Amino acid sequence: MHPIAEKVLARDTRATARACRLADDRAGDHAAILKDLFPHTGRAWVLGVTGNPGAGKSTLTDRLISVFRKQDRRVAVVAIDPTSPFTGGAILGDRIRMQAHFGDPDVFIRSLATRGALGGLSRSAVDIARVLDAWGADVVLVETVGVGQDELEITRMAHTTLVVVAPGMGDEVQAIKAGILECADVFAVNKADRDGADAAVRDLELMIALGGEVASASGRARGHSAAAHHARAVAAAPGGSPTEGPWEPAIARTVATRNEGVAALVDRLEGHRAWLFGTEAGAARREERLREAMHVQLRDALTDAAVAVLGPALDAAVHAVARREIDPYTASERLVEAFRSTGAFTPGGAVAVGDGP
Amino acid sequence: MHPIAEKVLARDTRATARACRLADDRAGDHAAILKDLFPHTGRAWVLGVTGNPGAGKSTLTDRLISVFRKQDRRVAVVAIDPTSPFTGGAILGDRIRMQAHFGDPDVFIRSLATRGALGGLSRSAVDIARVLDAWGADVVLVETVGVGQDELEITRMAHTTLVVVAPGMGDEVQAIKAGILECADVFAVNKADRDGADAAVRDLELMIALGGEVASASGRARGHSAAAHHARAVAAAPGGSPTEGPWEPAIARTVATRNEGVAALVDRLEGHRAWLFGTEAGAARREERLREAMHVQLRDALTDAAVAVLGPALDAAVHAVARREIDPYTASERLVEAFRSTGAFTPGGAVAVGDGP
Repeated sequence: MHPIAEKVLARDTRATARACRLADDRAGDHAAILKDLFPHTGRAWVLGVTGNPGAGKSTLTDRLISVFRKQDRRVAVVAIDPTSPFTGGAILGDRIRMQAHFGDPDVFIRSLATRGALGGLSRSAVDIARVLDAWGADVVLVETVGVGQDELEITRMAHTTLVVVAPGMGDEVQAIKAGILECADVFAVNKADRDGADAAVRDLELMIALGGEVASASGRARGHSAAAHHARAVAAAPGGSPTEGPWEPAIARTVATRNEGVAALVDRLEGHRAWLFGTEAGAARREERLREAMHVQLRDALTDAAVAVLGPALDAAVHAVARREIDPYTASERLVEAFRSTGAFTPGGAVAVGDGP
Repeated sequence: MHPIAEKVLARDTRATARACRLADDRAGDHAAILKDLFPHTGRAWVLGVTGNPGAGKSTLTDRLISVFRKQDRRVAVVAIDPTSPFTGGAILGDRIRMQAHFGDPDVFIRSLATRGALGGLSRSAVDIARVLDAWGADVVLVETVGVGQDELEITRMAHTTLVVVAPGMGDEVQAIKAGILECADVFAVNKADRDGADAAVRDLELMIALGGEVASASGRARGHSAAAHHARAVAAAPGGSPTEGPWEPAIARTVATRNEGVAALVDRLEGHRAWLFGTEAGAARREERLREAMHVQLRDALTDAAVAVLGPALDAAVHAVARREIDPYTASERLVEAFRSTGAFTPGGAVAVGDGP
């Protein structure tokens, strides 16, 4: 076993931080370490926390950490941090809010900078979550800021996705909720003491109610699995044991700054977890997520291998497209053929171009 | 030539809408149509417009359309629309604001719904922009809402990226600007009559000034091309002809609702265009973007081909990972090997699993 992997399993903080960094950068022996750690993963509950800036995600995450720590669970936090060196202020503030847990050896907090690499963020987050799972985390909280592809990719890797919304954040906030519904398992209406909280809850209830029908129609047409996800059913029965059937997103009201409603929120999250790990529908969902993750992993592995194999052929294709000798659609088809056979690219069909050194 | 491609070239609105839809859905003869249209593309200026919700992008886009129409240029708008059927309100409002141009045969407006497909958004947007280029657009405006991977992917396909910011949208707005700096060619500080406009301009100037150094260090380390992009240089000389050297992001103040500052903004945008098409540094940037686009295209083509070829082997891999018989890293390596040879997946190393029909 790789010495860093060994140290991660021994819960060495420094080695764990190093393994996270290597996984993030895809540097050093990251592949060997991840392979060694994988058999020791699968125990952690990966909980994604997302929502618009200003909704209070960080404060709520902090409260969740406290609840989990009181239950004597080990907690890891992966904070997807969109700040660059020149605009670090706001998010540093968030991190400081979590500092209450910095001395706790059973809380591991790791920031992960987004740098706009295509698909790179979710790959890093998946790998880091695995490292922290192997480190012994009972819960891995993955907190993201912003809306868009980032969140969608991240929430796909989480077992349970919590979407935090705050009332009264303007019209367009409503708009950017779209796409998020598809991956929200639990909503927290945070800052629930503010005007507009009731309206926000009603809006979410309406979205969830409509979601079942709309998503099942469009989801099926698109080949997505939204149907199973959104269709209406009650998931966690009041008694405690999960009910079969698809999961319907749950809603909790919280005031994170005053620690109100957090226990009820955790109940909702645990309800989803019980559904995911205790029902056939949940097992189907987990397999579907695993399949999606394997697709992403395969896509990345193929791209890496193709770039390495094709090298000069890829350059030749770029130049041929730039000179408009070939369209990019045909060029990429030829590159795929080349990857599966010789590695050379032939723009015209007869003469091989780019058989470089 | 495909009949739909022929009709697009004849500027048939209905056929163009159909070609866009086919490209978006990757349905029907989309590949044949795109191949036929490609030789007729390359004329349009693709202008990306992004920024936070509420910054006033749609109103500003509307003003830009008016300016371009006064110059007798044909305009196409691709609005990346994050609304799903159940939350359409806000964005429908935006579209209505653009309705002034709906009767104009030289303005083509097309909404493109984000549906969270990994990388699917930029692929669709690139293809649709090509259709509209072939239709005869002089300018293709690609407007996105939200922040994150979506925007980064979209701005990579644009010739010129305009980032719209509004003063006084809270602290975290500052934070989510990160990543955007890397792809912003021109900033519009919109709602410039509001308190905080001067501060917003100063913040941006500081970001740009710092960006040169920070990005050139981290960009190089990461193998990105941020260095060339950010280094300091003046791009469009006052006289008109573009100056050699990297592009430095320009800033314009606008009040879109009162149509103030829009002409100056267009000057900045044209300055970038002149730099991009009139300098060696601009040519280098265009080649770099083309290379990135070819990577994405290749990645998608590889994934599609691999999923088709591997079929049951991919299923076997998913099940083997689910049963923890193999780690996903090794599994994806084996799948890549299988794609390059037999198409079968062997989790153990000896016995072939998943040699389905």
